[in-house]
Amino acid sequence: MCRWLAYSGSPVLLDELLYGTQNSLIVQSLHSRLGAEETNGDGVGVGWYGAQETPAVFRSIEPAWNDRNLRELADHISAGTVFAHIRASTGSPVQQTNCHPFRHGRWLWMHNGLIRDFHAVKRDLVLAVDPDLYPEIEGTTDSETLFYVALTFGLEDDPPRAVERAIGLVEAAGREHGVEYPFQGTIATTDGESIWAFRYSSEGKSRSLFFSTDVRTLRAVYPENEMLRELSDEARLVVSEPLGDLPGAWNEVPESSWGVVKPGQDELHAFTPDLEFAGAHR
Amino acid sequence: MCRWLAYSGSPVLLDELLYGTQNSLIVQSLHSRLGAEETNGDGVGVGWYGAQETPAVFRSIEPAWNDRNLRELADHISAGTVFAHIRASTGSPVQQTNCHPFRHGRWLWMHNGLIRDFHAVKRDLVLAVDPDLYPEIEGTTDSETLFYVALTFGLEDDPPRAVERAIGLVEAAGREHGVEYPFQGTIATTDGESIWAFRYSSEGKSRSLFFSTDVRTLRAVYPENEMLRELSDEARLVVSEPLGDLPGAWNEVPESSWGVVKPGQDELHAFTPDLEFAGAHR
Amino acid sequence: MCRWLAYSGSPVLLDELLYGTQNSLIVQSLHSRLGAEETNGDGVGVGWYGAQETPAVFRSIEPAWNDRNLRELADHISAGTVFAHIRASTGSPVQQTNCHPFRHGRWLWMHNGLIRDFHAVKRDLVLAVDPDLYPEIEGTTDSETLFYVALTFGLEDDPPRAVERAIGLVEAAGREHGVEYPFQGTIATTDGESIWAFRYSSEGKSRSLFFSTDVRTLRAVYPENEMLRELSDEARLVVSEPLGDLPGAWNEVPESSWGVVKPGQDELHAFTPDLEFAGAHR
Amino acid sequence: MCRWLAYSGSPVLLDELLYGTQNSLIVQSLHSRLGAEETNGDGVGVGWYGAQETPAVFRSIEPAWNDRNLRELADHISAGTVFAHIRASTGSPVQQTNCHPFRHGRWLWMHNGLIRDFHAVKRDLVLAVDPDLYPEIEGTTDSETLFYVALTFGLEDDPPRAVERAIGLVEAAGREHGVEYPFQGTIATTDGESIWAFRYSSEGKSRSLFFSTDVRTLRAVYPENEMLRELSDEARLVVSEPLGDLPGAWNEVPESSWGVVKPGQDELHAFTPDLEFAGAHR
Repeated sequence: MCRWLAYSGSPVLLDELLYGTQNSLIVQSLHSRLGAEETNGDGVGVGWYGAQETPAVFRSIEPAWNDRNLRELADHISAGTVFAHIRASTGSPVQQTNCHPFRHGRWLWMHNGLIRDFHAVKRDLVLAVDPDLYPEIEGTTDSETLFYVALTFGLEDDPPRAVERAIGLVEAAGREHGVEYPFQGTIATTDGESIWAFRYSSEGKSRSLFFSTDVRTLRAVYPENEMLRELSDEARLVVSEPLGDLPGAWNEVPESSWGVVKPGQDELHAFTPDLEFAGAHR
Repeated sequence: MCRWLAYSGSPVLLDELLYGTQNSLIVQSLHSRLGAEETNGDGVGVGWYGAQETPAVFRSIEPAWNDRNLRELADHISAGTVFAHIRASTGSPVQQTNCHPFRHGRWLWMHNGLIRDFHAVKRDLVLAVDPDLYPEIEGTTDSETLFYVALTFGLEDDPPRAVERAIGLVEAAGREHGVEYPFQGTIATTDGESIWAFRYSSEGKSRSLFFSTDVRTLRAVYPENEMLRELSDEARLVVSEPLGDLPGAWNEVPESSWGVVKPGQDELHAFTPDLEFAGAHR
Repeated sequence: MCRWLAYSGSPVLLDELLYGTQNSLIVQSLHSRLGAEETNGDGVGVGWYGAQETPAVFRSIEPAWNDRNLRELADHISAGTVFAHIRASTGSPVQQTNCHPFRHGRWLWMHNGLIRDFHAVKRDLVLAVDPDLYPEIEGTTDSETLFYVALTFGLEDDPPRAVERAIGLVEAAGREHGVEYPFQGTIATTDGESIWAFRYSSEGKSRSLFFSTDVRTLRAVYPENEMLRELSDEARLVVSEPLGDLPGAWNEVPESSWGVVKPGQDELHAFTPDLEFAGAHR
Repeated sequence: MCRWLAYSGSPVLLDELLYGTQNSLIVQSLHSRLGAEETNGDGVGVGWYGAQETPAVFRSIEPAWNDRNLRELADHISAGTVFAHIRASTGSPVQQTNCHPFRHGRWLWMHNGLIRDFHAVKRDLVLAVDPDLYPEIEGTTDSETLFYVALTFGLEDDPPRAVERAIGLVEAAGREHGVEYPFQGTIATTDGESIWAFRYSSEGKSRSLFFSTDVRTLRAVYPENEMLRELSDEARLVVSEPLGDLPGAWNEVPESSWGVVKPGQDELHAFTPDLEFAGAHR
């Protein structure tokens, strides 16, 4: 229902991240290989960190494949932390405020998947949002609401814990309304320093998610590859689906897990929704 | 912060309503005479009743003065009940879901003005909305939230009473949050048969609102006027500001009042927000 | 590279034409079965004839599948002659002025296919356009330029002859610039009374084109079919690809031919580009 | 009919150029003081030079005052050569390809004003465009056509001479068609190193144009002014109207003149259309 890409590493031109590969995000906007929908033409968004404290976010309702402003930005902007997202709406309106990534202060958030029967549980989720944060919600997606629930539950202090709590609330609220599998999807969030990625679904069959192999390892295998030589040792991509067919370059994120890309050793852990937290704090 | 027009009468081409007068709504989009803002370029919407049970609604984020699809529709569509609205955003995003008129079933709703400090009271208002109606809210304006509060409070059964209750809640919630003058504006709503219009503000200095003089009276004064001869006896316009300078054609709606345009004798009454209702039903 | 639909018959709600079938034009915008491109998401246009002398044209750059204004119009407008087109750009910008159908007076025009190497021959074609018509060209597509060449060559008097001359010029100009197969595609044009449709390509492998079987014949085969009972005897659809799977309902237009849907007996003829005309009149 | 701004100097955040002053370009989009039209809400464009060979161009059809992507870019992008333009259409469609600045290779071009009776002379001007350049024209404005005429007449080698020739052709073609005052306006063009600005009209009453006073001079007068201290000595703004009210900061460009902002001493010269060139080369 969407596809996304998160990058952390030495600054690269957005063009290389968005257009420069065989199965690039722009290619996926017309023909995704692994997505729930082949076409992801309901808007596009890119967030990046530059000289300012908060990240820039460009969002457009035009299909990514023909968005000329996106093409211009990609040709001229380089960044070391980049989020990009192409949307396939599951019903909510195609408007800039429904395009990912969403931003709060230094934080970005994007999501592929859905909260099932969102109409039924939306009110419960919105009620859980900190009243001071509530007016910041500008769009109508399940993804943005989930972001604000996670912010309310401590995203800025402990992202994995906050997301476990937020999805725990989705699971609990969904079950109350008789939804069999309340949550489906993958999530990425960042403060500009680290990137946290999540893969989880109530039914245990989550949307696809991959991370790139360590650059030093890949360089040893492909000593001639120019792009690999330019990348920093710690450069990492987390993507809905592989951007190309280089053998050994892509690794599937296991079901029900979360990982963090950060200075030093990256990590991968099991993910378990916290069904208690929200109930205990109502 | 916006301008609007409501028409009921014999079917007329939208062109005549929207473009065909000296100070038409399209002229007002660039140069409003009486509006809080001179420019109303943040989108446009038109609702009309045709052969179907529910009205059609066209909404666009382009400024009305250069919207070509609006121009096309105006040239080709005639209707006997028409709502049209041009927007000057007070901060909420320029997107179709924030353009008036809003629709629920057979009902249309539009508003000129604002709920002051909406960020502070939005949550209280949203909590008052019937949970079954809540998921229908698609945009982020104060106007749409107020519509759903009014629907919750009985708009479809007794529009004047429901709006008195809804604005009563705005007054009460605003005061709780220390807002001196919580509500400002004019509202129009219709079920396709009758049009109800409201003019009220907490401070007693409301946005301008006018209604057209009885067609039979005008015809007697201007026997040569071709447009007047074509209109049905009961045709009536309610508008944010006069569409032209014909002496005797326009009458100001008094402060704190509501009126109804309906088959038979139209009516005009005093408007008093009901501060008790919402509190008693929480 | 595009898909289109032309309808003539008893007035029907646009919804039935655009959304109401298994392989409707809206379905084709995401997943065309027979198109050169599977996705036709670069804008949409609908033209219809109502009470006015000239047809109405609605054009939007949003993908058809999620265009809410199109959805509204389809739900509320009925017409007896309708052109609808979904676009897959071959490079020219996605903007309303590049959306089909194009209009000149009472005439509409739409096209699926391309003038190959249009950049090379555009100037030659534009030079052939009547200087009085030239300033009316508002977009940058090959299709619109071809429309104005055809108008210059007599479209309003003898459509088949004018299109044979216009495509003749494309063939001649293309060959001068070394283009092997200068023209590819299908065209529909109408004055609101009759619809002319063309299928031709230099290489003899043209984009798909179908016409619907005579309604009386279909009714005899499917006496229970409700839609068929509502249609007038002479109702006819010409479409880039069948809208459904009803056996016997669709007939392929032969290679290199043109047809006319008109009051009385429709006709089908061979199509031969006139390579002489333009040269003789330069 | 438009307003524009050209900056050359030490890199500054776009925000300071576009939003940061009392009568900023964004303020002018709603309320221009000296423009032919008060409202310039028919689109916006910004061009800037970064690390790449060719400049970036962002163009949007939304009114500048509420364009969120423009706001984002302004908050995050700094540049040393910047062109920005807000549009008030004189009839041609509101679409990205009609937004200034226009680009060819390293060159940018923008214009405020009009070629009078453009419909009558457009064909003559287009015929003068180098056939190799012709297919690059993507929009339908007089401004873009004039850019391609100037490119044809040597803009990249000698900008003042090329513009004198191009406007000379406009004057000649206009007179042939009986246009009393064929050209009106101001123009800016740049190769990223120097900026050339032009002020001219057939009737000798041209659209307003100003340049900023030498930074060293201003600093001596306003030693406390922080922005002035940050700017490089050679920083210069050329603008349709002053961005603020600082006494001594703005100087009107004389009628019928052109200037160049470049490394070293800037220059100001008389401008005379070359009426002979185009005729001699037809």
